[in-house]
Amino acid sequence: MSNVLGNHVQFEIFGESHGPCIGGILSGLDAGVCIDLVLLQKNMAKRSPGSSPYVTSRHEADQVEFLSGVFEGKTTGAPLCFIIRNQEQVSKDYAATRYLPRPSHADYTAFVRYGGHQDHRGGGHFSGRLTAAVVAAGSIAEQINTARGIRVYSHLLKLGDLCDRSYYDGIDETALKASWENPYQAVDPNLSAEIETVIDKMRCEQDSLGGQVETVVYGLDAGIGSPFFGSVESRLAAALYAIPGVKGLEFGRGFELSVMRGSTANDPFCITPDGIDLAKNDSGGINGGITNGAPIVFNMAFRPTPSIGKEQYTVDLETGQAAKLSVAGRHDPAFVLRTPAVVRAMTHLVLLDMR
Amino acid sequence: MSNVLGNHVQFEIFGESHGPCIGGILSGLDAGVCIDLVLLQKNMAKRSPGSSPYVTSRHEADQVEFLSGVFEGKTTGAPLCFIIRNQEQVSKDYAATRYLPRPSHADYTAFVRYGGHQDHRGGGHFSGRLTAAVVAAGSIAEQINTARGIRVYSHLLKLGDLCDRSYYDGIDETALKASWENPYQAVDPNLSAEIETVIDKMRCEQDSLGGQVETVVYGLDAGIGSPFFGSVESRLAAALYAIPGVKGLEFGRGFELSVMRGSTANDPFCITPDGIDLAKNDSGGINGGITNGAPIVFNMAFRPTPSIGKEQYTVDLETGQAAKLSVAGRHDPAFVLRTPAVVRAMTHLVLLDMR
Amino acid sequence: MSNVLGNHVQFEIFGESHGPCIGGILSGLDAGVCIDLVLLQKNMAKRSPGSSPYVTSRHEADQVEFLSGVFEGKTTGAPLCFIIRNQEQVSKDYAATRYLPRPSHADYTAFVRYGGHQDHRGGGHFSGRLTAAVVAAGSIAEQINTARGIRVYSHLLKLGDLCDRSYYDGIDETALKASWENPYQAVDPNLSAEIETVIDKMRCEQDSLGGQVETVVYGLDAGIGSPFFGSVESRLAAALYAIPGVKGLEFGRGFELSVMRGSTANDPFCITPDGIDLAKNDSGGINGGITNGAPIVFNMAFRPTPSIGKEQYTVDLETGQAAKLSVAGRHDPAFVLRTPAVVRAMTHLVLLDMR
Amino acid sequence: MSNVLGNHVQFEIFGESHGPCIGGILSGLDAGVCIDLVLLQKNMAKRSPGSSPYVTSRHEADQVEFLSGVFEGKTTGAPLCFIIRNQEQVSKDYAATRYLPRPSHADYTAFVRYGGHQDHRGGGHFSGRLTAAVVAAGSIAEQINTARGIRVYSHLLKLGDLCDRSYYDGIDETALKASWENPYQAVDPNLSAEIETVIDKMRCEQDSLGGQVETVVYGLDAGIGSPFFGSVESRLAAALYAIPGVKGLEFGRGFELSVMRGSTANDPFCITPDGIDLAKNDSGGINGGITNGAPIVFNMAFRPTPSIGKEQYTVDLETGQAAKLSVAGRHDPAFVLRTPAVVRAMTHLVLLDMR
Repeated sequence: MSNVLGNHVQFEIFGESHGPCIGGILSGLDAGVCIDLVLLQKNMAKRSPGSSPYVTSRHEADQVEFLSGVFEGKTTGAPLCFIIRNQEQVSKDYAATRYLPRPSHADYTAFVRYGGHQDHRGGGHFSGRLTAAVVAAGSIAEQINTARGIRVYSHLLKLGDLCDRSYYDGIDETALKASWENPYQAVDPNLSAEIETVIDKMRCEQDSLGGQVETVVYGLDAGIGSPFFGSVESRLAAALYAIPGVKGLEFGRGFELSVMRGSTANDPFCITPDGIDLAKNDSGGINGGITNGAPIVFNMAFRPTPSIGKEQYTVDLETGQAAKLSVAGRHDPAFVLRTPAVVRAMTHLVLLDMR
Repeated sequence: MSNVLGNHVQFEIFGESHGPCIGGILSGLDAGVCIDLVLLQKNMAKRSPGSSPYVTSRHEADQVEFLSGVFEGKTTGAPLCFIIRNQEQVSKDYAATRYLPRPSHADYTAFVRYGGHQDHRGGGHFSGRLTAAVVAAGSIAEQINTARGIRVYSHLLKLGDLCDRSYYDGIDETALKASWENPYQAVDPNLSAEIETVIDKMRCEQDSLGGQVETVVYGLDAGIGSPFFGSVESRLAAALYAIPGVKGLEFGRGFELSVMRGSTANDPFCITPDGIDLAKNDSGGINGGITNGAPIVFNMAFRPTPSIGKEQYTVDLETGQAAKLSVAGRHDPAFVLRTPAVVRAMTHLVLLDMR
Repeated sequence: MSNVLGNHVQFEIFGESHGPCIGGILSGLDAGVCIDLVLLQKNMAKRSPGSSPYVTSRHEADQVEFLSGVFEGKTTGAPLCFIIRNQEQVSKDYAATRYLPRPSHADYTAFVRYGGHQDHRGGGHFSGRLTAAVVAAGSIAEQINTARGIRVYSHLLKLGDLCDRSYYDGIDETALKASWENPYQAVDPNLSAEIETVIDKMRCEQDSLGGQVETVVYGLDAGIGSPFFGSVESRLAAALYAIPGVKGLEFGRGFELSVMRGSTANDPFCITPDGIDLAKNDSGGINGGITNGAPIVFNMAFRPTPSIGKEQYTVDLETGQAAKLSVAGRHDPAFVLRTPAVVRAMTHLVLLDMR
Repeated sequence: MSNVLGNHVQFEIFGESHGPCIGGILSGLDAGVCIDLVLLQKNMAKRSPGSSPYVTSRHEADQVEFLSGVFEGKTTGAPLCFIIRNQEQVSKDYAATRYLPRPSHADYTAFVRYGGHQDHRGGGHFSGRLTAAVVAAGSIAEQINTARGIRVYSHLLKLGDLCDRSYYDGIDETALKASWENPYQAVDPNLSAEIETVIDKMRCEQDSLGGQVETVVYGLDAGIGSPFFGSVESRLAAALYAIPGVKGLEFGRGFELSVMRGSTANDPFCITPDGIDLAKNDSGGINGGITNGAPIVFNMAFRPTPSIGKEQYTVDLETGQAAKLSVAGRHDPAFVLRTPAVVRAMTHLVLLDMR
């Protein structure tokens, strides 16, 4: 299925950056869930650039409006459609570059895929703005998952070479919880100044930077998931790779496991007063596609923002001639800073569907 | 869908390591495809340990038998079911360890998931042997893809710290093609001796090792795939993470992109006599979830074989007591050596479905 | 999938009768389809009661607004979300009957299914009003199907005992085409007066009536569809039974075939100047789930409108006591009159997906 | 999805009438279900012609063999693949008619759909024999449904004009239960002689006859199903129309409802000592796509067997010339007699998936 995530709880995204709105549909939700609007808007704000001048200078209000599926403040069980209206659309910014695809953005591939009929303005349907719909939907999933005891933490692990502390450095749930309140979703509160220095530098040099986001999930029982195409890794990977700009995903120690020996990579079992446990968690909570009761841990690589002010080589799709492009407008020097809220929301959507 | 891959061409896997057979169903295939049995069995042999004493000492005949969907040597268009009979089943090997889960194998998670009713012998449905069904199905997909001009190469990139040459080291399609004939699917023919030394060492130390497999796809047009949940990355990732033992997946430069700047990570467009092209391919052939015409490149991390002879800590699931386990039997010291054929086959299945 | 129709082109419906709007999402559409708004609104009008006082006295404007997927008047290829705003909501009509389910309506089943959290006003998500979204989506499908040579005609075959002429009475495509312009989508123009007399009678007696709608599809090639779960009948049936109030569906001669002999029921082949043809079409254009080149013919039974003014026995879901109910408000005495546009639209959606 | 039924529990069918076997895969089953082989083979026998000389003179052993998913007599939770070997294949019967499609059979449509590559022998994948796989899979579903209190009865309602008693004639569950033991799955035990007379007549005249099968489901709670595409009617219809030869399906009073008034068609609520109930069940247990707690009732029309000895007009697909055909071989004069077991099994599969 191309545009639908999930089997039990299904999610679809729609909208374009410069159309009337973006939004989504969630179907298969339980009825009677009281929508926590404070939580919803707090999550929206984490993705929104409003909180920090170091992310982007665009202002996005991101108010979620429900078109269906909510009655008297609660979910009805019928499909829940919501929208987030677009504002402050400076579409003329984009007219001059309609036929000048930004290198490594979706401009060119969308042009080919849709025969030039795509809404090109601001990336259209391919804009990172669409991830606001993921955050909105994920916030509703989060409410239901929270009631089931599931906690998901996504934090900035790397901004370029700048490193935050990892699950594998021994941070605990309290530290991860605190990172959610950190302006950059970093575990280490001292990183803020360095992050801001790096962002200032990128902005000054009209360049951009990539990064990594680590996620840890607590509260899942052992025995969730299925072998092969129903594996927890397969289902999370399908959803997480739908987030624009993701170029890598690893579970547990991930790529490090590929240079390890079995005797050190294997997680031995042990007996605790609470029952069977693992002495460590290098597998990231999943064996054979099924949860083993330890936290699920995964790490994602985000590419640098493709839209940069620096001059780049492109082609003019109208004339077929070589061209140069300096992307004007206000772009995130490192959109990875806005992704922890998106990753966390997408993870909640997948986990809700796997229940 | 838990057990089904694909929308147009659908694939299901069934079987257990020590049941009568393993197999699969392919539905939605074109009719009239003449099954190339030589290609099929050659691919099966690449996954099979028979070719080298350095993989495993088990002998697996792996003859594919068609139960349906083939008539007069050609596909009929009806669902194609095939089986590969199991032989030489030494099930008594497994009786003693029925309740002693191997660390980081699926024994424990399968036990919890299925309430102890799983076929535990040799990993049952979770055995790496099931990947033979992927290779069989992928070989049929390969035939159809080849006729469309698509070529897929999967080669061993790393065995532990031992490195083969990568697409990003500048190897060309000829070198990749040759790697398929290499006994270890390595590009560098001089690696064989080193690989064998490493494997001897692991076997001697009753330990195992992980590795990496790189894949390059040539011949796909630009404009294939869809945004979000229909992205090429999402679809490949869902399928590739279904392969047992995969713990990492990166597209293009992958994790390296996360520490790069936009000005170096972006792939500039250029004009060639053949039309629009990219000056380099750090994105791995995909932007916004859609192919850009450059080769698709991805790299996967495989964990070390969890079954090792070295003694490990486990628990007795019957008694709830701590226990020790030395896995007897013949196991691959590095199952990654057998995975290039599996990765390649799975990639063909996904690409066939995306047409 | 509970809420999604289709594999290639997918359709979801959302909204409640007395919420802000109803709507739908179409994803997987071709890019570059110029939306024919005149056709769209004409189809909407056929379903709308505005055209005749004999259908219902409610006024429904039913203006379709596009939220996404349309740019410069054409489809972009991205998900197309549209809404139809609700107007003239007299919700207080429904407060008194919140806990008094209408017999044979969805009030009771929705109450049980959603634990009382459903939007009860005017049937909420179960209102026949939702079928306006089907007509809107189907109109876009119709445009694409028309360009492929496919024509779908749905006409009123029966209103209670009152009979229109059937495909099996020998009417041709010209007559079916004309029926679309008939105020009641009847082939026989002389039926109008009788229909109006019957409706007047029902309204006067505060009662309602059922009916039948026959559909004929021209222009489909032989060889479309698949055996078993992909059969044309299975796929049409799944979609058509999603229309509220459908209680019967038959293909070709349908139930009549069950009392026929093979020698009369079978459709003999014949040779015409154009090639292979059928001497007659009692099978309704489908054999073994696959089209045979003859027109697809099917007939659907619609129940009488459950909402009637006549007093009926019900229960009070709050108190658990027996109660009586006279449904106030303006209801169609025979909603079947509004369904030809819905059946036709749903058929177009299925055929578009089967291409 | 073309070849897969269900979301939670998925079912695929494979095989050809004259290939090595037919079979199916069930995935998503609970683990630990002890397979009742006696029930399974009893159900197989109901579909098999062996029990009565009045059905067909072919002998079909129909022994079910499990290839996977069963261990120590119980389901493992992994995909369960089973086969039923084909025997007594007189393929030479079919060589002469390879290019002479039987009127109203799938021979012609399969030829067009698959470009002549279909296995033509005995209808190949389109043979009624494939329904044995439905019965096998449905028997496992039945075991699980029975444990949940669900009972499904399918009985012969009509053989041509010959009528059995219907749910709407007031028969109770005891009578329906008894019908399952009747050689023709008829409620009225006195029908046997008349059925045999009719069948003798058809056989003598080298002709065939259609019929109807009524199904009643007890034990489902109110509140199962979803609006629109997840409706109980939609899901049952999609599955039931996958059974070869079905040309009509109606729920509750079905087509009769289309000529009724709301005041008589509506099912009033009443209060019983057990709670809310319906005074009658003309809706067939479903309103708005959701169960209302009353038995689900539906009726299906089966066409006459298309294969008849009487001479018919056909075409020669090799030469394009008109031709005549008398179908030799042993065919059911009324395959409807073998369908109650199939309908019942398919219903169990759908209900298991809807849980």
